[in-house]
Amino acid sequence: MSVTAVPGFVATGLACGIKGGEARDLALVATADGAPVPAAAVFTTNKATAAPVQVSRVHLHATGGRAAAVVINSGNANAATGDAGRKDAERMCVLVADGIGCGGDEVLVCSTGLIGIPLPMDVVEAGIPRLVAGRTADGGALAADAIRTTDTVPKEVVIGGDGFAVGGMAKGAAMLAPNMATMLAVLTTDAAADPTTLHAALSRAVEHSFNVLSVDGCTSTNDTVIVLAGGAAGPVAAGALEDALASACADLAAQMAGDAEGATKVVRVTVTGAHSDADAAAAARKVAESQLVQCSLFGADPYWGRVLSELGSADVAFDPDLVSVASGGVLVCRGGIAAGHDGAAVAAHLGGRNVELGCDLGLGDGRATIVTTDLTPAYIDENMRTS
Amino acid sequence: MSVTAVPGFVATGLACGIKGGEARDLALVATADGAPVPAAAVFTTNKATAAPVQVSRVHLHATGGRAAAVVINSGNANAATGDAGRKDAERMCVLVADGIGCGGDEVLVCSTGLIGIPLPMDVVEAGIPRLVAGRTADGGALAADAIRTTDTVPKEVVIGGDGFAVGGMAKGAAMLAPNMATMLAVLTTDAAADPTTLHAALSRAVEHSFNVLSVDGCTSTNDTVIVLAGGAAGPVAAGALEDALASACADLAAQMAGDAEGATKVVRVTVTGAHSDADAAAAARKVAESQLVQCSLFGADPYWGRVLSELGSADVAFDPDLVSVASGGVLVCRGGIAAGHDGAAVAAHLGGRNVELGCDLGLGDGRATIVTTDLTPAYIDENMRTS
Repeated sequence: MSVTAVPGFVATGLACGIKGGEARDLALVATADGAPVPAAAVFTTNKATAAPVQVSRVHLHATGGRAAAVVINSGNANAATGDAGRKDAERMCVLVADGIGCGGDEVLVCSTGLIGIPLPMDVVEAGIPRLVAGRTADGGALAADAIRTTDTVPKEVVIGGDGFAVGGMAKGAAMLAPNMATMLAVLTTDAAADPTTLHAALSRAVEHSFNVLSVDGCTSTNDTVIVLAGGAAGPVAAGALEDALASACADLAAQMAGDAEGATKVVRVTVTGAHSDADAAAAARKVAESQLVQCSLFGADPYWGRVLSELGSADVAFDPDLVSVASGGVLVCRGGIAAGHDGAAVAAHLGGRNVELGCDLGLGDGRATIVTTDLTPAYIDENMRTS
Repeated sequence: MSVTAVPGFVATGLACGIKGGEARDLALVATADGAPVPAAAVFTTNKATAAPVQVSRVHLHATGGRAAAVVINSGNANAATGDAGRKDAERMCVLVADGIGCGGDEVLVCSTGLIGIPLPMDVVEAGIPRLVAGRTADGGALAADAIRTTDTVPKEVVIGGDGFAVGGMAKGAAMLAPNMATMLAVLTTDAAADPTTLHAALSRAVEHSFNVLSVDGCTSTNDTVIVLAGGAAGPVAAGALEDALASACADLAAQMAGDAEGATKVVRVTVTGAHSDADAAAAARKVAESQLVQCSLFGADPYWGRVLSELGSADVAFDPDLVSVASGGVLVCRGGIAAGHDGAAVAAHLGGRNVELGCDLGLGDGRATIVTTDLTPAYIDENMRTS
């Protein structure tokens, strides 16, 4: 269901041949009548932005925040492809616009896959008319399937608001780190909202969902989150829309963490007692992104010394004698030294799929959580060769 | 030979039982006559400093930069051990001082191993008198062996200067990252130099050797580099001493990279054309510490897209359209897009043990090199459990 669970939207996905097999690699989400609606997007902070990010940004600016469709391909990032890549991304938009009857700059475009390889535009050109023709009011699942790369499962969500709904789909299994989504997500809603309100609500929703997810500290060239607001449900309270978007993003982020390449555990690193929320976030990120901590998590090893060491090198206000560390709520380090504890309880917690790592710096009220995974041989196996 | 290749120094190493077997775990380097000489040290930037780092820093301050001996244990970091840990580190110094006939604050102390576990002082107390008694003018190799943790080989160096010599030993195979050594090293020289000159020379030597090494981005709690200047060779030109120290540190750093846990390759990431040297260093570090780039290196995969993506997220001045990337000197990306190249030559280079990755940002004269390794399943295997 996902994006088409919301009245007023159609979608589909198909295999056009970018991936070279039967795997779906082209997706479309559009308004049912092909007319533009308020739209907002948040993009990667990577300065090596992919062509579709550049093109989508220009289109949103040109239309003042309106779009009728989003076209997405997987299997090729159309990144580091220069002017030719930008032309290809523009061409994808024009082909969709011709099909659904809107302006070219009313289409947004996303790509995900390998960097540095020109898009095979012959198969894309042949695929888009079929894609447009195949869009239906129940095609959300096909679209969610078509945007997968190494994702083992599609990520979809539907959030029911008070008299409106938010639907969404996402992809992301590696190059997962903060500063914008490090993945692709498309959200739809039938709530009515102007582009400015929509952008503010999306930004806040992303900040506390996708942006607190860090699997490997790598921020991709293509990260994009887009929301289209159809308006069929009429105006809703700004807070209600933001809450629903935040719930949808949080749900999709959790699905991404659970499907991260090679990971066997989803780990929530929470830092409390920091001098500020910013300090807490920096400290939690340093722990979450530590290769050594991630190795310990894979081994279900209760070695808190590495956590303390990462906190100490996080470049935040820090007094080692005030630090506590807890594993699944069981205190293993208090006042910067080992704390007697129930080893069996800690072992049982670390042996499970969901791990909670708590660090209290004992300095103030700053608090933050970063979600990460363990580092496994399967991650290396997945990423050691691209072909 | 290492530290005892220099006239005026004695050393030894033995197994006292910290590691619980026959493996050596206690080392001593001292002046031959037990008298203090000018000494300098550089310590970790981690705020969770281990007890021996705190004690050594206090001792150097108290003596105005003089020391007669360095005592080192492996198998236990004496970190996150609180007041008891500081007392244990002090006790180690006093025991050595009693043995060689100097003041307690004229002894420096280092520990390396697991964090958060009290030192087994019973075996240390019994071991130190034997250690002191066993010191000899050719015991450097025993000392270099005794400071190993997961190091598969000892790291030793001797540099002959103009009328003087520098000897050194080091350990380090994980938690290897910038900001000070992320390892232990002890250097000796018979050059005469006052503590201030010695510290300045050591700092510059470390900056361009240990500090450009990053295997996993983790900065340990115990990093220490110490130099003792015996003075038997008399005064030397300040530049000559600095050059010799720099050569010794560079040699030891290369030995550490070559012995990094699980690594199959030593990789030099050089960034040129940056806006500044600082930008170049930040960009090179972002590439070198990228889990995805390190996975590609393990697979000998020529995928430069990840390199470009890391450069783009390095938070430095950056224009993707000006970037070039070279593998072993062969240009694989020019102007931000794929460059036609000899694939066989690149494959041959990446298949070797020493890899050169060059990135030109096309913006200015800034330049820096960071040395790293690939990320392998063996690294995970080594680090997933501490017991």
